[in-house]
Parts: sequence; C-alpha cells; structure tokens
Amino acid sequence: VQLSDLGEFGFLDRVRSWLPHGNALVGPGDDAAVVEVAGGRLVATTDALVDGIHFRADWSSPGDIGHKAVAVNASDVAAMAGDPRWMLVTICADPASSVDSLEELYRGMVAAASEYGVEIVGGDTVRSDTFVISVTALGELEGDPLLRSGARPGDTIAVTGPLGRAAAGVNLLLSGDPRDVTPDDALACIDAHRRPRARIGEGKRLRDAGAGAAIDVTDGLASDARRVADASGVGIEIDADRLPVAREVASVASSRGWNAEQIVLGGGEDLELLVAIPAELDAQALGLIPCGRVVDDGLWLVRDGRRTPLQEEGFDHFGGALG
Amino acid sequence: VQLSDLGEFGFLDRVRSWLPHGNALVGPGDDAAVVEVAGGRLVATTDALVDGIHFRADWSSPGDIGHKAVAVNASDVAAMAGDPRWMLVTICADPASSVDSLEELYRGMVAAASEYGVEIVGGDTVRSDTFVISVTALGELEGDPLLRSGARPGDTIAVTGPLGRAAAGVNLLLSGDPRDVTPDDALACIDAHRRPRARIGEGKRLRDAGAGAAIDVTDGLASDARRVADASGVGIEIDADRLPVAREVASVASSRGWNAEQIVLGGGEDLELLVAIPAELDAQALGLIPCGRVVDDGLWLVRDGRRTPLQEEGFDHFGGALG
Repeated sequence: VQLSDLGEFGFLDRVRSWLPHGNALVGPGDDAAVVEVAGGRLVATTDALVDGIHFRADWSSPGDIGHKAVAVNASDVAAMAGDPRWMLVTICADPASSVDSLEELYRGMVAAASEYGVEIVGGDTVRSDTFVISVTALGELEGDPLLRSGARPGDTIAVTGPLGRAAAGVNLLLSGDPRDVTPDDALACIDAHRRPRARIGEGKRLRDAGAGAAIDVTDGLASDARRVADASGVGIEIDADRLPVAREVASVASSRGWNAEQIVLGGGEDLELLVAIPAELDAQALGLIPCGRVVDDGLWLVRDGRRTPLQEEGFDHFGGALG
Repeated sequence: VQLSDLGEFGFLDRVRSWLPHGNALVGPGDDAAVVEVAGGRLVATTDALVDGIHFRADWSSPGDIGHKAVAVNASDVAAMAGDPRWMLVTICADPASSVDSLEELYRGMVAAASEYGVEIVGGDTVRSDTFVISVTALGELEGDPLLRSGARPGDTIAVTGPLGRAAAGVNLLLSGDPRDVTPDDALACIDAHRRPRARIGEGKRLRDAGAGAAIDVTDGLASDARRVADASGVGIEIDADRLPVAREVASVASSRGWNAEQIVLGGGEDLELLVAIPAELDAQALGLIPCGRVVDDGLWLVRDGRRTPLQEEGFDHFGGALG
C-alpha cells in the first residue's frame, strides 16, 4: 500500500491509530493540539506548504508564501479559540536558492507574524530538492478549546465570511489571461489565494458566545463540514440558496461560466471559520452567515426542499493537484 | 548570493538579523527557544532530518530514522535544562512511499517518545520529492534555562560522556566492509549513528549543580565548542591529552589507521552535553569528563603545553556531505 492509496487524510487517520493514548487535553485530529503547561493551556499546530502543491513560485512572490505560511498556522490556533503567540519555521530548500528571495520570504513571515501578534522564536534550515516551508504555531488558550467535535443535531451551521475567493483565484491563475473578468474581482480572488487572512479572535469570540464547534475552512466547505460532522458524530445539511458565495466569486463565475457552488463547496483556503451554534442564537447578530444545520447523519445539500449528497472535491495532497 | 555560499549556520545568522527583537525569554540562536506560558516556562525547538543528509535509507531502517528524529529534538530541549513533553511531526514524502515503512517510522518515533517521556500530539504530511522528517519538540522548564552564553573565562569545559561513536559509525558505513574491525566496536559506532541517545535530565542536573553553559554535541566537539565560545564571547581551549575519545572509537581508529582526534573534533551527533562549569566544581564528581577550559578568546587545541588553532570540520548542510 502506498501513501497515495490512502490520501493525506486517510494516512493521518492511520497515524492516529499508531499513536498511544496520551495525556494531552486535545491530541491529533483537530485543528491543533492542546496541552497543559504550568497550569495554563498551550495550543500547538504545524502545517507545511509545498512548492507546486500549496503555492506556485510563478504565481506567488516569496513574500506571499511567507505570509501564507504564517496565516494558515495562526488560523489553526485561532480556530481552537487560542491566541497565536510563537512560531518555529523550518525551511527545506535547494542550496542554489537565492538568499535574496529567502530574505523576502522571511520579510513576508515577519510582516504577517507582526499582524497576528506572533513572534518567530526558532527554526531550522535543511537541504531538499523540493521547497517546503514548515511552520509550527504555538498559542495560549484561556478557557476551553473550541473543537470540531462539539456540533449537536439542531445546531445552526454558519461561517464567519463569504467563501470561494481563493479557489476562484487559483482557477483564474490556472486558466491564464483574465481579460474577460473585472480586474478588481480577479485581483481580490488571486490575492485571497496568495495571502489568505487568518480570522484571529473570531474563534474565541464565538466560543464565548456559545458556539459548540469550529474549523477553519481550508479544503472547501464540503470537506470541512464533513470533518466537523465526523468528529461530532452527526450529519450536516447545507442550504443551496444560502451558500456563502463571495461577491467576487459570483462575478468571476458568471463571466467565465463557472459553477460558483462547486467553487465554494470544493475549493478551499478561505480561512473563514465554519461553526456550529445552538439554534436559539442569532447567527446574523453574531456577524455570521448561516448556511445550514446539524442533523443526525449524512452530508447533504438541500435545494428546493430536497436533499442530495454533498459533493466534496476538496484538495488532497496525495490524490489531487494544485487547486 | 546562494544559500550554499552562506552555509546553514551563516544563513541562520542572517535569518536572526531579519527577525525583530521579541519578548521571548530566549529567541533564535540557542539549542531551543524559551517563552512564558501562564506563568510557566515552555521550551520549543525544531530540527529536521533529510534523507541523504542526516541519514541514508540504505543504512538506517525507518524505525531508526523515527527514533533519531525524536532523540535529536528531545536532546535540544534537555540541553536547555528542560523536560521534553510533546512533539509535532511533519513528514514530507513521495506519494509512492510504502505505508508499511511509514508505520515503522512512526513505531520508532513512538518507542523513542515513550522512552523520553514525550507525547506526539500533532503533525502534518505533505508531498515532496525529498524525504524529510521535521519534528518540533516542546518541553517544560522549571527555573532558568541553561544557555550557550553562560561560559566565563576560568570555567572548566567538560562533556557528559565520551565522543566520536556516531562519526566513526558513519565512516565505517561509508567505507563498506568492516571485517577488519572488532564487530562489537563497529556495531556500537554504527548504532550510535542510527539511534543516538538524548541525555535527558543531565542539563537540568548540571544547571542545578552550577553549570553556566551547555550545548548538545551535534556537529563535533570543535564546532559545538565554537558555538558556546561565540555565544558567551569567550575562547575555549581543548586539551589534546584529555580528549574524550570513546573506547570503541579508539579501537576502530586504530584498526583502520584513522585519526581518532579528528573524528571527535570534527564528527558529530553524539548528543552528549558539552558544558562549562566553574573551576571550583569537581567535574569527575559530577560524572563529567573534563577536557578543557574557557579562556578570553580563540579556539585552541593544547598539546604538550602548546596551542594550535582548533580544527573544526563539522558537518554543514549546505557545504558538506553526509558524515
């Protein structure tokens, strides 16, 4: 059996079966781990970006790549209701890499770290044919973590912002010449791929408001909804007529004849939070876009009152290709 | 300017110049960083092993590689006087990798983690042409960290155990057929390369006993002595007649006509601690092998009362080759 037969997420399930049960408050399998340090709680997560998989050097500047590596890791800490504080950075690079471009990469990381209140405290640099930037983010957590596993039937499913820009941006970059698309819309989408923004503070705010579960959307609404459903042992229905399609995505999809619904369900890297909140809470008053509900089982798209299985075509590092 | 022009350590100096001054108790540049969490102290470090650089898949089993990845990271935490507690593991692997060998890798990591009192709490898996295993280790620290920068002129330089086995092991593996060498000695050296052992608890014990500085020996006595000297703004003299040569290294070197002194000074990965202790402390009573002293400046080998510059031929990831 090869890694590609299992896929990234199948492999991670396998890894969890190899690890003994430990004492961490939250072990592998959520957005981040949570452990106790000196009576406080520490959130820890690691996420690597690979050239040609998570970014392309001809699409993103080194500064963009640094920015993104910091954002996706800060996002995982924040999705647990933690405050990202420190990062360690490992660079795997060809010895022929230009020091100037590595400086630009670090400048991008430092700028994003400063924006998110994070300090880069260490790292490593090793030789590799494939360029990889691997970041570990550490954060502090006051109170309980906001897990994937707290969704309950009847909860409202909602997101912290409209989705699809990053996925539309990748599709625009893949398809070349964007002359038929409004420049501002194209740029908003491409920028969302190049420099996604982590929603720092939202997880904490929503946990305090009563949210039961959260995940940051990194592989498309359908895949990330499935993760919440699997972790919580529930099902999720998404309403087709309330799909949180970003305005620029609707515009680009319309110009290109693309299916905006597929972009939002199957595309990723928005870094908005998908949350489950008790039905009695007012999603809009919490600044959320409601788009579905938690049910007993299954993953469904509801259109005109009829359920069809939710199609997920999220990106899988060992199965798919960029985008 | 290319990465290879600066070398790994020159590049890391450059990286430090790009990072703003932060609030960490210990930032980049020591064996690990130290930050404050909830009034306690957290030690954090990351170290990656690369196929063909830090190990060779034809010399080490997947279990050996997993064991080593955990040991070198636990060692960095322990060298700061910390207790390693948690790890996150990122695997960069070819999609065609065998899941069985990855399971063996994880089994090796889990066995070593268990031995060192560590729990693997998270990680990531990404696609890469080069196989890399990147580990972040987190630990707790009671009291002050044991830094590289605390060596003072007059201090005794000592190590927690004899050196050179891992470097001799690599040389034996590189040279092929070891029939001319005593099998037990060859195996001890090769095992030291394959599964180096972290000296957990020694940093803490020696700090409590009054040690002023420590580093784990990973690139040869000369290179690691230089790091302590540089960080402390002092010089170091090593005594040629008290060089801590492991018995097996002396034996193998004698059979092969190798220079045991060069192996110990220029080879690495012993994971013994090199420490600076006040001259009034009895190194032997502390279980240490004294081998030199801290002086005002320079790096010297002292033989028959005469100083010569200390030759360091430590391994540099962007300048050298395996071994």
